[in-house]
This record gives sequence, C-alpha cells and structure tokens, in this order.
Amino acid sequence: MDAVLKHIKNNHLLYIEELKELLRIPSISTLEENKGDMQRCAEYVAAKLSTAGLDRVDIFQTTGHPIVYGEWLGAPGKPTILVYGHYDVQPVDPIDLWESPPFEPTIKDGKIYARGATDDKGQMYMHIKSVEALLKETGKLPVNVKFLIEGEEEIGSPSLEPFIRANAHLLKCDVVLISDTSLYSPGVPTLTYGLRGLSYLEVELIGPNRDLHSGTFGGAVANPINALARIIAQLHDKNGKVAIPGFYDDVLNLTSLERKNFARLKFSEKNYAKELGVAELQGEKGFSTLERTWARPTLDCNGIFGGWTGQGAKTVIPSKATAKISMRLVPNQDPKKIAKYFEKQIRQLTPKSVKIKVTSLHGAYPAITPLGHPATKAATRAMEKAFGKKIVYMREGGSIPIVATFDKLLKAPSVLMGLGLNTENLHSPNEHFNLTHFGLGIQSSALFLEEMGK
Amino acid sequence: MDAVLKHIKNNHLLYIEELKELLRIPSISTLEENKGDMQRCAEYVAAKLSTAGLDRVDIFQTTGHPIVYGEWLGAPGKPTILVYGHYDVQPVDPIDLWESPPFEPTIKDGKIYARGATDDKGQMYMHIKSVEALLKETGKLPVNVKFLIEGEEEIGSPSLEPFIRANAHLLKCDVVLISDTSLYSPGVPTLTYGLRGLSYLEVELIGPNRDLHSGTFGGAVANPINALARIIAQLHDKNGKVAIPGFYDDVLNLTSLERKNFARLKFSEKNYAKELGVAELQGEKGFSTLERTWARPTLDCNGIFGGWTGQGAKTVIPSKATAKISMRLVPNQDPKKIAKYFEKQIRQLTPKSVKIKVTSLHGAYPAITPLGHPATKAATRAMEKAFGKKIVYMREGGSIPIVATFDKLLKAPSVLMGLGLNTENLHSPNEHFNLTHFGLGIQSSALFLEEMGK
Repeated sequence: MDAVLKHIKNNHLLYIEELKELLRIPSISTLEENKGDMQRCAEYVAAKLSTAGLDRVDIFQTTGHPIVYGEWLGAPGKPTILVYGHYDVQPVDPIDLWESPPFEPTIKDGKIYARGATDDKGQMYMHIKSVEALLKETGKLPVNVKFLIEGEEEIGSPSLEPFIRANAHLLKCDVVLISDTSLYSPGVPTLTYGLRGLSYLEVELIGPNRDLHSGTFGGAVANPINALARIIAQLHDKNGKVAIPGFYDDVLNLTSLERKNFARLKFSEKNYAKELGVAELQGEKGFSTLERTWARPTLDCNGIFGGWTGQGAKTVIPSKATAKISMRLVPNQDPKKIAKYFEKQIRQLTPKSVKIKVTSLHGAYPAITPLGHPATKAATRAMEKAFGKKIVYMREGGSIPIVATFDKLLKAPSVLMGLGLNTENLHSPNEHFNLTHFGLGIQSSALFLEEMGK
Repeated sequence: MDAVLKHIKNNHLLYIEELKELLRIPSISTLEENKGDMQRCAEYVAAKLSTAGLDRVDIFQTTGHPIVYGEWLGAPGKPTILVYGHYDVQPVDPIDLWESPPFEPTIKDGKIYARGATDDKGQMYMHIKSVEALLKETGKLPVNVKFLIEGEEEIGSPSLEPFIRANAHLLKCDVVLISDTSLYSPGVPTLTYGLRGLSYLEVELIGPNRDLHSGTFGGAVANPINALARIIAQLHDKNGKVAIPGFYDDVLNLTSLERKNFARLKFSEKNYAKELGVAELQGEKGFSTLERTWARPTLDCNGIFGGWTGQGAKTVIPSKATAKISMRLVPNQDPKKIAKYFEKQIRQLTPKSVKIKVTSLHGAYPAITPLGHPATKAATRAMEKAFGKKIVYMREGGSIPIVATFDKLLKAPSVLMGLGLNTENLHSPNEHFNLTHFGLGIQSSALFLEEMGK
C-alpha cells in the first residue's frame, strides 16, 4: 500500500493536468447548447476509466444525458463498491463575477478555479485516480469496483432512477461511495453519515367565494389569512417541538456518542448567529444547533401568500390564503406517513368557517449509515490515515435524494466521503477545489478500498 | 309644503329628461380623454343650479377637475345646509357587458340605466330639483343652502380637502347633506348614521440576512413566516376580540336602542352565509353580524407574503415575511392612537430572533351623527313622510373619508340620505337608479329642508 500512496503523491501534478482537461469541457446539463459537450465529457470520463485499467467501460444513452458505467470485478468473494459521481455542472451566470473564465481552469494559492472543480468533477475524478494507482502498482484491486457517473445531477437526475431500476443487477453492490459533500473544515477528515428527508405540502384555505371589501364585511366572516396564521402558529409548541401527533414516533434518537461527537466540534453558535445576521438562534429546546439542523426533524413555512401583496394598501378580505410548509425528517421517519399526520392535524385545526385543500408536493426519505457499520469504520480508518488526523462525524440537514434511491433500489448504504468545502462557491462564481484535499481524497479512496478488502 | 310636493310629482317626467341630459355627458374623471367632458359636466350642473334659482353659482378650477359651488343665503338666523355630491363617474369597462350604451340613458322597468345613474348623478340631482321646487312654489327656502359638487370623487377627491381648507368660511354650515349611499331595501326609507374608520399598517419581519436552504438551516433560526403567523394568531383572543391593549378604550358602545333597531331588520345570517359561500360566519362573540360589521371594530389581514410563492416546492427559509393588516374603527376610536397601540403590541409579541419594521399606510376617522341629533330627527321625519313608512337606521362598515373631512374641517355632522341600492351595479356594467326612489328622494330633500327650518 505504501507504493500505491507514493504513486499517488508522485503523480499529483499529472492528475491536476488531467483534471484541468476535464474542467475545460463546459458540461452544463441544463443548457440545450451544451448537449454536444455533455457527450464529449461522458466520453472523456469513459476514456479515463479505461486508461485506469477497468475491465469494462460503457456509455449508456438515456432520454437525457449519457451515463458512464465502468467495472473491475476481479476480486470474487470480496465486497463490491459502487462509486457514484456526476460529470455535469451548473450554469456560470453571473459570468461577470468570475475572476478567471469558468472553463479555463486556473490555479491560485493551491486551489483550482473552474466551474465543476469541487461539484463534482474534482471529487469524482479522485476515485478514478485511486483505482488507477492501485491497478498500476499492484495489478489488481482489493475489492470489486463499479463506477456510475451521471450527467444530470444538477437538473434533478431524471434518468438515473429509471436506469438503476432497469439495471439493478449490473449495479448490485455492497456499499456506495460518494464524494459530493464537504469537510467540516479545511484539513479535517470528515464523514457525513446521516441525511435528513423531506415532506413538503401546500395548504390552501378558502373563505368567502370572492374577495370582499374589508369595510363592508370586516367582522362577518373568517379571514383565510388570519385562520391560516392561527393554524401555522399551532404547529409548534412553546418548546419549539413540532406539535403534530405521531410526528416523533419513529425518530431515531441521537446516541450519547453522537452528541459527544457533535459537541467536540466546538461549533460557535455566536459566530454562526452573527454570520446569519440574527440576534439569537431559535429551535427545539434541549438540543444544540448542530443537533437541531443535522439530526432533529423540523417544520418550516417555505412560502405564504394571500390577499394584496403589492405596494401600499388595499382593503380586501381575500377569498384564499396559501402556505407552503415543509418538514425536514430524520431516520427513521417516513415522509408519506408524516405527510398523512400533517394533513390530519391541519384539518383538525381548521375551523368550520373556512374550507381547506392540502396537496403533497414532494417527499424524500432520510438516510443513515450507522457509525458502527463496517463501511463507516473502513472509511474512518482510511481518512484518518490519509490526513494523519482524527475523523469528524457529521450529519447533513439537507437531503441527497440519490442516497435514499440507492438504499431503496440497491439495498446499499452510502459512504459520503466528501472532500469539498462549503466555502468553495459551488453553484456560484469562482467555484474552486483545494488541491491538497484533491490529493488526500485520492489517498483516502485507495485506502478505503484496501480497508474494505480486509 | 303640499304645493311643493305636488310640484315635484307633476314635474317627475321633466326631471327625468333633465337627468338623462346629465347622464349623457361621459364625465369619467380618471381618463385624460374625458377632460373636456368634465368641464362640460361642471357647466351643466352650474347651469341647473342657476335655473333652480340660487343666488350665486361658481365653477372653481382646481389642479384636477372643476368644483361647482352654489348658494342661497336668504334665511338669516336659520341653519345652513351644505349639499355635497359628485358629478364624475367610473369608467365603463367591460363595455361588452352593458345591455344599453353607458352614456345613452335607457329606461326599463322603472329604472334608468346609465353610468352614474345611482353613483352619484341621479342622487345629487335630487337636491337641485328639491331646491328648485321650493323656490318656484314659495319664492324662498326654509333654510340657507350651499352646494358643493365635485368632479374627483371616483379618483379619491385629491382637490377637495385643499379646497375646503382654503374656503372654510365660504363653506361654513351646520349640517352636510349627502345622497351617495343606499337604502336598506327597495322602498324602505333609510338613514345611514355611522361609518367605520380605518387604521392600515404593514408589518415586515426580518430573520436571517439572506434566504437560507431549509435543509441546511432548518432548526437553526427563527423562520420569519412562522414568527409572523404566531404574531397574527395572537391579535385575536378566543372570543374573536382584538387582543391589543387599549384597543377598545374609546369604543362608543351600541345603545340598547341601536341594537333593537338592528335586530328589527330581520337580517338573515343564514342567507348571508350562503351568498358568501361559507359554512358559518365568524366574528366577535356576543354581537350579531350587523352589529359586528357596522358598529364593532375589527382586525383583518388584507395581505401576506413571504418566501416561495410560485408553483411547486422551493426549500427556502426566507429572509423576510410581510403582512398588511388593517383595523376597522368605530366612533370614537382615533386611527393614530390605534396605530400606536397596534405597533406597540406587535413589537411586544416579536421574539428577539427576528427584527421588525412597522409602517403605517393609511388612516381614516370613523364618524357618527347620533340618532338624537336634530338633523337626524329632521331627516327621519322627512323620509318617513315622503315614503309613508317607518325609517330604518343603518350604519356602514366602510369609510366615506369626505364625511370625516367635513367633520374635521367644517365641524359639521353629515346626514347620509342615500336613495341608491347596493344592487344597482355601481362601478359595474348596467348601473341604474330606481326612478321611484329618485322621485321620493326629491320629496325627502324638500321635506328635510323644511324640517330643518322649523
């Protein structure tokens, strides 16, 4: 293994040159004009998988952009690791704010600047290089490896789930390895082992059959905005808990180890509040901010509208008022069950004086790969060795739908070995990727495959 | 007086022909292209005031449309009555829905159809004819009379208040007589003796300094929409009373006579709810719907907005949420004082986790001419005699700003002797005016002047 790590270190500059080539391809998945670049980028990734020494490499056409598949299955009896990543990138607007052109990779202070540098070309490419280094130095891999690199992540992966369903046997694996998240802070090895899910609904209250003059009718009928406000106000109790019967039934409580891990991060609530411009933070009583955002379910209004929303005054009692309300869910809450509980409670809280319509808009399952899982342990050892530092365990407040999809369709847990940083301007001008992390990621990837083979 | 009433009856058809001429002038105050018609209409009104026999008639130019003034001051020692009305009308769109052209007055089933028929040309013209009948039959008026007929009522009367301020001496009077409201129902003599006022504010809550991803930040910070909902929910108590300290301090309570009067109207709450399409009415406990809408103060959200208001889902914790909230006020509440109480309470209810901005958008004073006032008594006797029926006393939930202006600048109470009907399509296609009410209105006006002279 030392030879492999040495190989990786020795080829660092070459890897960067190759990454630059990849970053020069403007693979913006949402723009029709880049359709040819998407195909070219898929071909570039496929070529690099072949060069790395895989046994089989294919480009699968979809109704959208191509999916690149690769495999090396020469380790019978050993686990199979599916590496997932994406070669598509976000658009570059506003282009004026870029300090160097988005598709002319530029290195400054140890960082490579280009659209897709951290999200996800740079991170995805680490795994191609780690496999190459292992194969070149040892002639084999310690485990079976499959690659699934898509071109539609930035547009919601419409082709991916059908592809996985249709190719479940081809993609069969024990663990999914994904590098598309962030380190807790620069130089700190980090594993994200839990993601929140989502239940997103729209609530419409209907009062009178038309907008009414608030002078003539004020005092006669229930005002749907006021009624909606009263309902929303009752969705939290005074301790900031979500006041929906059954809501917490399936919540996997934080273990004392997890709480200790989070506390060790010495997260500054004061700095965080300052950065957000709020006088104080707010949320469920009895939990720290990291616990609340990473591992506790929440409820938020994401939008509200009704009546006069223009400038100045209009004296109307509106016929309707609408709120968009989402709940972030944690393992093992079920978004469908939660949506039902929500609707039941909303109807319960609605007075007879208004009608109500509840529409479910979106759902996503939460996910967790427990700290005790062999893959988590293997990733821990790998990253700690590469970085020479103790690992940090995080959860993530948002959802990565693909993780729940892998869980559901392939019955495989995901290891989120993210090497990016939240400050690397993903989706914004001047996106970049720390090249030290790039190198450490390639080592972590190789060490992880080795650990999984033990 | 019998001769006067006989004169009015005998000239009914002639009055209608004159009214038709007035209605043929397209005096739409909001349209630049009708500017010449506005001047022509003012001149027509002035000419009719002269023909009626007034001592002085003037057209005052303003920065907008002309104001017509007239006076007969030959009754020293007697009260002075200021007749207010307006000669301007609303636009006619949608023109397709008119069954006869809006400026070609057409009589059908005893009603005259034309833009301005009930609002306010037909009603205003009644008083010119009553004065004419009195002067022709008796050579004098029982009281002093002034006319103030403006051309900007439908665009918010921008020139009127400055004109009154500048001509307070000219307009000095004891009582203002206005016919621009409605009968309770056809053939029923009605006096509207109270109007509600208004205090209209905008409340903006500001949370984090930017829109946040509800996954990453959900649970960390106060959501301004949820916070706003909690504030709004606390603005009413469980009995539907407005929960703002001091709010009811100056409320003039309904007398038992007023409550008896309202109850006698046999208002059907069931039919009213059905017509509005609501399963049940809602408001302050302990009061009937008429009491609540006419004589009790209320609070309504007229608009609310924040976060994602488009189609579908967007997972955002918005930086801001805004509500437009108005309170309908009753005598003797002061809109400025109420706005202060409101702001104080809103600030009290706002958690430290959000910032707040309160802006006062609009205010209007409530008004009342008590049932015991000599002018109310005189109008009661006049209308009961003309109609041969017992009067009905109403209040109105909306505001008529000009009434508060007369109260404030001329210290004169208003008598609202409305002869229109809510069903006469004011501001809509096929506006019309019942010609029986037109005739009864001329008689009521003459009888009122006689009563005031006693």
